[in-house]
Amino acid sequence: MELPRPRPWNHEAEKAARAHLDQLTKPPGSLGKIEGLGAWLSGITGACPPRVPARARLYTFAGDHGVTAEGVSPYPSAVTVQMVLNFLAGGAAVNVFARHHGVELVVVDVGVAGDLSMCRDTEHARFVNARVRPGTSNMAVEPAMSRAEAEAAIATGIRMARAAAADGIEVIGAGEMGICNTTAAAACLAAVHGMPGKLTAGRGTGIDDAGLARKARVIDAAIARGQPDRHDGIGILSEVGGLEIAAIAGLCLGGAEAGIPVVLDGFISTCGGLVASVLDEGVRPYLLVSHKSAENAHWAMARSMGKEPLHDLDLRLGEGTGAVLAIDSLRLAAKVMNQMATFASAGVSNRS
Amino acid sequence: MELPRPRPWNHEAEKAARAHLDQLTKPPGSLGKIEGLGAWLSGITGACPPRVPARARLYTFAGDHGVTAEGVSPYPSAVTVQMVLNFLAGGAAVNVFARHHGVELVVVDVGVAGDLSMCRDTEHARFVNARVRPGTSNMAVEPAMSRAEAEAAIATGIRMARAAAADGIEVIGAGEMGICNTTAAAACLAAVHGMPGKLTAGRGTGIDDAGLARKARVIDAAIARGQPDRHDGIGILSEVGGLEIAAIAGLCLGGAEAGIPVVLDGFISTCGGLVASVLDEGVRPYLLVSHKSAENAHWAMARSMGKEPLHDLDLRLGEGTGAVLAIDSLRLAAKVMNQMATFASAGVSNRS
Repeated sequence: MELPRPRPWNHEAEKAARAHLDQLTKPPGSLGKIEGLGAWLSGITGACPPRVPARARLYTFAGDHGVTAEGVSPYPSAVTVQMVLNFLAGGAAVNVFARHHGVELVVVDVGVAGDLSMCRDTEHARFVNARVRPGTSNMAVEPAMSRAEAEAAIATGIRMARAAAADGIEVIGAGEMGICNTTAAAACLAAVHGMPGKLTAGRGTGIDDAGLARKARVIDAAIARGQPDRHDGIGILSEVGGLEIAAIAGLCLGGAEAGIPVVLDGFISTCGGLVASVLDEGVRPYLLVSHKSAENAHWAMARSMGKEPLHDLDLRLGEGTGAVLAIDSLRLAAKVMNQMATFASAGVSNRS
Repeated sequence: MELPRPRPWNHEAEKAARAHLDQLTKPPGSLGKIEGLGAWLSGITGACPPRVPARARLYTFAGDHGVTAEGVSPYPSAVTVQMVLNFLAGGAAVNVFARHHGVELVVVDVGVAGDLSMCRDTEHARFVNARVRPGTSNMAVEPAMSRAEAEAAIATGIRMARAAAADGIEVIGAGEMGICNTTAAAACLAAVHGMPGKLTAGRGTGIDDAGLARKARVIDAAIARGQPDRHDGIGILSEVGGLEIAAIAGLCLGGAEAGIPVVLDGFISTCGGLVASVLDEGVRPYLLVSHKSAENAHWAMARSMGKEPLHDLDLRLGEGTGAVLAIDSLRLAAKVMNQMATFASAGVSNRS
């Protein structure tokens, strides 16, 4: 498939932003990571100060996983459908977070196994039926999906990013829902970095020690079976990935093409970003890791992409909750750059 | 002086909150620290779910420090006055943060050295003239203030908390401005825990290595001179404290009396909470440490109070910026408890 090309970075605007930040009435660097966000927005948008992002949209991609058959989650697969209905009814955590911070929510069925034919847009979320197939196959015994299916899911993510750009969205968030998708994300991480399942598996929604050991074995078995090439993003997705992970990879590619920041949620969403950067490492600068998930290997995954997670609140829910928090931080960072007085304008003495 | 008594904690409501949180449509504990905040609000307010705090008010106390004479800050003392004017003009970081999150700002002159007679309420902040004295004396050579002055500053903080309660404020934030006040806060920490200046001094607004060593020596000299009793909060403030630190201690006491959560900003504000808990350890449950400051000893200070800082964004500005972020997190936590569906109400399967 032909992938979109990331827009060039504006190094001059980013540099100007750092100089501007040092003129604001505060000790240099004293707003910590908030300052970094502001300069990052300048680099992406080419504006110093950057516009305060008005419209933000979170895409929450839902998909199921054949690997559920291996007993790697305490929740049944039916929960994926139930939670999609919960998103549309406005009762999930991500709805509360998105309403609180003024972020639009779009729920995309990219591969749910159960029936969602009754789903329509609601006041709480838009619904997009882009189902590639009803859940993946069990990666422990066969490829999760075909290469064509992985590409179709990536294309869905690209299409969503392009639609957001056309709608005037200035920040895109990536979230997900899918029982057992921490197993798929951990397997992708294992494939990209040649890590054993023991180092990439975590407790997900809350498995016990025996479940954790089983999860690690399942990951090792899937990698041993599929032997994915670490430089082949499509192959990794096809052998051990998930449809929502593929769609998030596409969302990253499409965001980078449009020059829109893409805010990744937790372990699974960051994995989408990891796969996107395997497909095209030029996508990386456009990605923000919103928070440090409580899931075991998330920090290592983020660091392997050269990313320092923004927030650290022990979240491990997914859905896009952490992404919403970081989107709000981006708005705050832009406001700092637009609204703060300078030493000169406020008549404040600079360092003696 | 007679100190206000903290309101009793509602353990039943806190317990009910934890049980309620586990019925919401998410894996137990998966919202991390956000869940803890919700239960905390229930414990304080006695309601499960807790009301979403509508009106929040940040008190930013300003004071000057005689220890400036020792060369422990790269900024001149005049900046304290200049920054108070900046707060009232709406151009400081705390203004941007407070506007963004809908938090009222009150700036209190509890001990600024320069002229603020021109100050009036503005659309950006209310101004309170409660100056006890024009800055402290140089703690390196004499007591920072008298016991009576420390008590007067504490009384100011108590009065502000009571005024907030009378106004229907549901969350109080504590912030500060004062050139060299990290030196006073580090000296108070040294006094309370018997620590050497080397372990409590940090770079503040940005001193170099030589300045840092000088700051540590000044702290040690002040402690050696004043020999404050670690159990005597008034004595500690009087010998090595600051007027804004004393006022924040009073704000904590008054908040606990009114049963209102008090959100502490960074190193200096947390020091106000530390001194408050020396005065009455019953105040501690009402205090939230909003973030982990980049200032050296802040984490140790918070931990010594049994507190885990909420956010971690490398902020080291003060003013109340971090407190504003945590106030918003409190609102989000309350909304989670009020707005999320339960497994039963949403028809979502719980753990298999």
